[in-house]
Amino acid sequence: METRIEFDSIGSMSVPANAYYGVQSLRAKQNFNITKKAIHPELIISLAEVKKAAAITNKNANLLPPTIANAIINACDEIICGKLHDEFIVDAIQGGAGTSANMNANEVIANRAIELLGGNKGDYSIVHPNDHVNMAQSTNDVFPTAGKLTILKLLPKAINELQRLCNVLELKSLEFNNIIKMGRTQLQDAVPIRLGQSFHAFASMIKRDVTRLKKVQEEMLTVNIGATAIGTSINVSPEYLCNIADNIQKVTGLKVVQSKDLIDATQNLDGFVCVSGILKTCAVNLSKMANDLRLLSSGPKTGLNEINLPSMQNGSSIMPGKVNPVIPEVVSQVAFNIIGNDFTITMAAEAGQLELNAFEPVLFYNLFESIETLQNATKTLTDNCISGITANEDRCKELLESSVGISTALCPYIGYKKAAEIAKKALKSRKSVKELVLSEKILSADELEQILNPISMTEIDRSSFEKSKLNIIKAI
Amino acid sequence: METRIEFDSIGSMSVPANAYYGVQSLRAKQNFNITKKAIHPELIISLAEVKKAAAITNKNANLLPPTIANAIINACDEIICGKLHDEFIVDAIQGGAGTSANMNANEVIANRAIELLGGNKGDYSIVHPNDHVNMAQSTNDVFPTAGKLTILKLLPKAINELQRLCNVLELKSLEFNNIIKMGRTQLQDAVPIRLGQSFHAFASMIKRDVTRLKKVQEEMLTVNIGATAIGTSINVSPEYLCNIADNIQKVTGLKVVQSKDLIDATQNLDGFVCVSGILKTCAVNLSKMANDLRLLSSGPKTGLNEINLPSMQNGSSIMPGKVNPVIPEVVSQVAFNIIGNDFTITMAAEAGQLELNAFEPVLFYNLFESIETLQNATKTLTDNCISGITANEDRCKELLESSVGISTALCPYIGYKKAAEIAKKALKSRKSVKELVLSEKILSADELEQILNPISMTEIDRSSFEKSKLNIIKAI
Amino acid sequence: METRIEFDSIGSMSVPANAYYGVQSLRAKQNFNITKKAIHPELIISLAEVKKAAAITNKNANLLPPTIANAIINACDEIICGKLHDEFIVDAIQGGAGTSANMNANEVIANRAIELLGGNKGDYSIVHPNDHVNMAQSTNDVFPTAGKLTILKLLPKAINELQRLCNVLELKSLEFNNIIKMGRTQLQDAVPIRLGQSFHAFASMIKRDVTRLKKVQEEMLTVNIGATAIGTSINVSPEYLCNIADNIQKVTGLKVVQSKDLIDATQNLDGFVCVSGILKTCAVNLSKMANDLRLLSSGPKTGLNEINLPSMQNGSSIMPGKVNPVIPEVVSQVAFNIIGNDFTITMAAEAGQLELNAFEPVLFYNLFESIETLQNATKTLTDNCISGITANEDRCKELLESSVGISTALCPYIGYKKAAEIAKKALKSRKSVKELVLSEKILSADELEQILNPISMTEIDRSSFEKSKLNIIKAI
Amino acid sequence: METRIEFDSIGSMSVPANAYYGVQSLRAKQNFNITKKAIHPELIISLAEVKKAAAITNKNANLLPPTIANAIINACDEIICGKLHDEFIVDAIQGGAGTSANMNANEVIANRAIELLGGNKGDYSIVHPNDHVNMAQSTNDVFPTAGKLTILKLLPKAINELQRLCNVLELKSLEFNNIIKMGRTQLQDAVPIRLGQSFHAFASMIKRDVTRLKKVQEEMLTVNIGATAIGTSINVSPEYLCNIADNIQKVTGLKVVQSKDLIDATQNLDGFVCVSGILKTCAVNLSKMANDLRLLSSGPKTGLNEINLPSMQNGSSIMPGKVNPVIPEVVSQVAFNIIGNDFTITMAAEAGQLELNAFEPVLFYNLFESIETLQNATKTLTDNCISGITANEDRCKELLESSVGISTALCPYIGYKKAAEIAKKALKSRKSVKELVLSEKILSADELEQILNPISMTEIDRSSFEKSKLNIIKAI
Repeated sequence: METRIEFDSIGSMSVPANAYYGVQSLRAKQNFNITKKAIHPELIISLAEVKKAAAITNKNANLLPPTIANAIINACDEIICGKLHDEFIVDAIQGGAGTSANMNANEVIANRAIELLGGNKGDYSIVHPNDHVNMAQSTNDVFPTAGKLTILKLLPKAINELQRLCNVLELKSLEFNNIIKMGRTQLQDAVPIRLGQSFHAFASMIKRDVTRLKKVQEEMLTVNIGATAIGTSINVSPEYLCNIADNIQKVTGLKVVQSKDLIDATQNLDGFVCVSGILKTCAVNLSKMANDLRLLSSGPKTGLNEINLPSMQNGSSIMPGKVNPVIPEVVSQVAFNIIGNDFTITMAAEAGQLELNAFEPVLFYNLFESIETLQNATKTLTDNCISGITANEDRCKELLESSVGISTALCPYIGYKKAAEIAKKALKSRKSVKELVLSEKILSADELEQILNPISMTEIDRSSFEKSKLNIIKAI
Repeated sequence: METRIEFDSIGSMSVPANAYYGVQSLRAKQNFNITKKAIHPELIISLAEVKKAAAITNKNANLLPPTIANAIINACDEIICGKLHDEFIVDAIQGGAGTSANMNANEVIANRAIELLGGNKGDYSIVHPNDHVNMAQSTNDVFPTAGKLTILKLLPKAINELQRLCNVLELKSLEFNNIIKMGRTQLQDAVPIRLGQSFHAFASMIKRDVTRLKKVQEEMLTVNIGATAIGTSINVSPEYLCNIADNIQKVTGLKVVQSKDLIDATQNLDGFVCVSGILKTCAVNLSKMANDLRLLSSGPKTGLNEINLPSMQNGSSIMPGKVNPVIPEVVSQVAFNIIGNDFTITMAAEAGQLELNAFEPVLFYNLFESIETLQNATKTLTDNCISGITANEDRCKELLESSVGISTALCPYIGYKKAAEIAKKALKSRKSVKELVLSEKILSADELEQILNPISMTEIDRSSFEKSKLNIIKAI
Repeated sequence: METRIEFDSIGSMSVPANAYYGVQSLRAKQNFNITKKAIHPELIISLAEVKKAAAITNKNANLLPPTIANAIINACDEIICGKLHDEFIVDAIQGGAGTSANMNANEVIANRAIELLGGNKGDYSIVHPNDHVNMAQSTNDVFPTAGKLTILKLLPKAINELQRLCNVLELKSLEFNNIIKMGRTQLQDAVPIRLGQSFHAFASMIKRDVTRLKKVQEEMLTVNIGATAIGTSINVSPEYLCNIADNIQKVTGLKVVQSKDLIDATQNLDGFVCVSGILKTCAVNLSKMANDLRLLSSGPKTGLNEINLPSMQNGSSIMPGKVNPVIPEVVSQVAFNIIGNDFTITMAAEAGQLELNAFEPVLFYNLFESIETLQNATKTLTDNCISGITANEDRCKELLESSVGISTALCPYIGYKKAAEIAKKALKSRKSVKELVLSEKILSADELEQILNPISMTEIDRSSFEKSKLNIIKAI
Repeated sequence: METRIEFDSIGSMSVPANAYYGVQSLRAKQNFNITKKAIHPELIISLAEVKKAAAITNKNANLLPPTIANAIINACDEIICGKLHDEFIVDAIQGGAGTSANMNANEVIANRAIELLGGNKGDYSIVHPNDHVNMAQSTNDVFPTAGKLTILKLLPKAINELQRLCNVLELKSLEFNNIIKMGRTQLQDAVPIRLGQSFHAFASMIKRDVTRLKKVQEEMLTVNIGATAIGTSINVSPEYLCNIADNIQKVTGLKVVQSKDLIDATQNLDGFVCVSGILKTCAVNLSKMANDLRLLSSGPKTGLNEINLPSMQNGSSIMPGKVNPVIPEVVSQVAFNIIGNDFTITMAAEAGQLELNAFEPVLFYNLFESIETLQNATKTLTDNCISGITANEDRCKELLESSVGISTALCPYIGYKKAAEIAKKALKSRKSVKELVLSEKILSADELEQILNPISMTEIDRSSFEKSKLNIIKAI
């Protein structure tokens, strides 16, 4: 393999002659052979966008000669379009607060710009990774800014999937609105509910997640670009400082603004913790729903079997005909992973020291995974599970009628103690609650009819403020 | 000990004759001998407030006779004033979704009301714990509602302490505004910063926590009271349903509203996860600041020693005269505890099944502790640490001058590579960066003066948009 | 209130005249008003045991005059017997690596010893908290050593409860050995199992926890007593160094030994993380079992209802006759709490710096709670749940017979694909698997009888190595 | 693209004609588009090893015709050698307890075996994925068994790296044995220590990790192979049941044994939690050491600067000549990730229900990553950091001499109170402790010499049991 020799503060090193990356990227690859996973493609693009905006700003400030600036901008555009990504060779988890990722970008862009200007890769007298590509920048403002841009691109996709899930849940809630079934608390028979209400509750829950995730995006809008090393904006011209955020807006279309306290913004990662916390909250809700779906579809013969999930996979390599709730299962797994990631993110943010937090790479590694797997899990949940769920109306009815939970509805009329006696007797005798109330002449058939009306047991007519027609029995 | 006999579905049991609690509380005490810690006094008060509001609402709806209602209200008022709290004997961590806590409240209130009406404790024909005190309620709406009320009372105290911390940090940032020191990234010498800027960054960070915590209170304002068992409002009159939230507002002064999806609101605890997540984010920030304070005050002779924390304790039982950063240490410990609590809360919320989450007791146990210890730790941090911090200005200056970090400021003028050479040479030769630049005639004394002006190295004058007067050296 | 004036490095302070604690304890109380919970009584006793052993060792080394030593020993004995515990006024979570707890012990013991020697409390010329009570000690060896002693006393109680649980589970496995039921994987009907086998699996699982917990106690046997401040044993006489561990053994009866690397043992808390990790593993198992118990006892009418948990509490304040799985619920909650505590412990251990980890107080606070709540939850699980479980044999049989899971047993004879067809057909037609196989003449009645023998479906006779008598059908 | 049609319980589907995977793999790929990461190559190999052992066992039991068995064995051998891995197309995180991974293996092996037997891919009448390749197996025993085999292969590599780290630390401890420096507790000056002792403590700590990790491998040796679906060994011949574990031993060389309670072993994942807990403990230690290295090497001018880490990377894109502790930083990040993974693993294990835990895929995904990144981070720590560390002996000495920490050594001779006064005075006056003691005639020069001997301050000569020659001053 042909090579060229490059130099840095540590010494010299052979780099493949045709590589766009340089010595610093290569050292990083050797030092950080950790996950063997590359940095996220969207983060690569975000880095290029920041570099492009910086070149534009420096050019306008007359600090970067237009020829160099334009070559840098063109090189960045290629990366933004998806080219040269395999030249980003550093590991996703790396020491050094992202310096290696930033230098990888600087080197690739410099060498591509050199090439565009007719030079040979490695001839940094034409375009220099630090002096030109990284001009007025530091890893410490570029990397967290690029991280926030990445999240601002990834989050909306996840939010869209959650919104779609919410819509499908609402449709299902209408479809199942008239299916009456038994509600269960602590897995014990409770009181009646309509299946549509259950799905409406799922929808309401996910709607909150959508709202929270939309709102928490604001945490990502304030960036520390212009801070350079520690937030004091050393080596930055006033013109750059005042214009760089605007130019990032123009390049990315994202409404980012510069922090008013760049020192704070450079050293503290609480905004990411906040985003992760909201993702975790969403994961909790998704897993709870996934659990419910597995419970409600359990069986078919020895479980609840109130709903059917669509069959997506042969369920078993040994048990013929078995179909398992594989989609809810993968959703719960993703939720567990997001929750674990949240802890890593929390520890990484807590570990910041003085003017910098050096642990952003592992934070990003986990946060990007959380967002993307949330999106992917939500998508398969919507398309391969929720939208195909059907209800076993007869089974729901049969279970409801077999239970004594409706005795609760008698309490206001016959008192808790009497109702408890009836319930106990019904469970023992296998007679129904209705039969017992009638045979013991506690209430009339008419009264019972009104009290145990299935619809009224699942919903109160708020419009009527009139007192109940039935007399309260003296026992109370 | 004199006793009375009480009955429940399980059977009969001896209760101390003078006890206000009854058979269900006593059984719970025996079944759940777990933490040996009582439920939180503010939760006891919140339960009484809900019971009082329910009695008012039921009275107004003509469902509860005024004599009984008034006796219940009076009993509740006594508890709200702090009386009878030792009659709440159930463990903070209990099975049953809080039923034991709710029944403990029902029994204490019933027996006190019976007494106020001239009856004997245990004579539930006068006031019944379930039929009267718990009328139109279920543990499943009372307990989470009382939990939210509790949080709405505890959170503002924590927020106030954080606001006070923020104010003191801002004062300190003014006090230290002219103290120039070395900034450090990754614990390595970086570029200059003013100590006041560091404290301003702390203040900015805590301000965000205050904002987030204020906002997240909204998550607690939507309650499921009126939901009863599973959110279908079984056994609730329309009048009660429409008025109970208002009456809780009147009783507590808190702006709670009834959820529009009571089924969702009964089974999902994501709002609590959200609150805990924001507390955790704040804990991360507090611990980061505590860490910085320990680093900056380390020494006095073999550490950084740039600031002095006030001496609060003899530092050591063996090392005389040692004074340790005990307040930041306790702050970090509280932070670790809050972070651990967050995971317990997350798991508890995730474990909900179908129409109910039965794991609220452990969630509340942890969430209340998180809020209160956050408040207490913040208070001692403000009063016993931050407000008494002094700066070692000479030490700051001495360290700054010894370092080569200012070579960064030369980059725009002499290029990254040349500046790196100077820095390396300075470290080896023990000559200063300035000396070397002058002796090598790289820049003139005037140019150097301008570039290495200490104030301009820590802050950019944004108002001036003019280009730098210095020519960019050809090397770039 | 009468007071005396005491002095420390910080200055002077009024202490209640009759208090055994002194100025340092009082300052700590004011600085660390965090949880408002005292340090654990068993930790107080352990501290006194270490102090007693140190006094004995120093006396034997002729470093501590016998009169003083004996007074100290007597004072320690009183604390070991449970006296003077309310003189330990410092908060469980405190800054300073436990210095306040250690000094609280030193002061209480000194003042009690002074009193025993006829002096006045506060007259430290008679017995000095540091020079005499703390002789040859530092918080940094006393506190972690006392913590380990505490754990060595708490753990066996938890282990005993787990062993008892294991025994009861084994009895239940015998009791239920002949009850055949449907096994479920992913909550879907799988293949037959005997209820006794399920309980045997629980027992096997808990047995592993017992083994692990017994083994992990070794982690606590190596203590750093004699290390003093940082492990270099400064201020310790050779005689003390060689004898102190033996004397702690004699005082406590616990087989503790001195670490061979006292520096390591003073700064690293990984042993505690290890113990917590094993507790967490046990918590996972307990919660899994608790979940299963809730699933198996769900219903009674709309759930699985294969077993009955004993009724321990009225289940509901609104739903009459409802009995909930409150004991398994409290077990899961304790498990969640232990898991959260594990993360706090992990963070505390990770935060150690250089020669010391200052975060032991919060670590102990959580670890002691984990052990004790594990013990208490296990006890109530054994006594109030497992031992009273009964089986619904008919229900088990009925569910089993309704299912098609036994089609799995046909695979070796008719192939997976054919068996899957039969299973599907059975589910649709409501005909049984047996009927279909016979009517389609796939196997003879005899063959079927042998294949679908309920016992042989749940257990393989390993003793017989002979080949199956049935011919493998050609389809394979 | 040419395709073939395949069928499963769900229906038919086009599969690329030249694909070795089949319909079930393809469905899984579509359903579980989650992480876009493949299952671990070592897990693929382990699956093939289990399949090979099963084919051998079934052949010996005369259940599988030798031709088919041999073709399966040959196909497995190819996979074991690293071939066909890109035919494993299912996502690492998948629903269904690993059924898709197992079926992917079954399909690839079947099709390759078919090919070897001269048939066309997809012609399962020759070799059937379920009936032949999966004979006597279920995902529920194959997948966890393969997971344990994988861990048994990955763990030794990590252990070897840790052992190597330990060895290098011990060498360093010898190298630095005579460098005296100041010890620090709570980052405050404490008492002297030798740098070699610090590195010895690191070595002792890592040695414990090695011991624990070696021991915890036992948790992985008990496998549930032979359990099939739920542990009842349905569809397994006695001969297979008795020989399969031995054959896995022969195929893999790993000393795995069959669980005595296969039902327990099929449903409970606590062994994995245990392994993860030990890895987490190790991560805590590594991160603590990484932190210490960053502290000790901080500076070079404004930090502690007692040691130099080897320069591995340009430290900064903006600050010339800056070299950062990038290797310790990546180690801490890996530690945070392992700790977060531990939580995911814990939740996955806790979520098991009844006869199976369906969440193994996410557990494996995290556990494998934890082990491998631990190995990789340890390797770079040893090779790129520890082995190249040098000490700044002069700096160590200078800091030590400037401090007052040695006043601790005076306590046994002049009392804690007097020593504290000297220390305070020294700090204020900038006179040394020695000077003050001499000028105040508290001790003679000879006595001082003996007491403040640097070596004796860092180590006690245990061999000498004689009493100290110096008289104890009366103050005590």
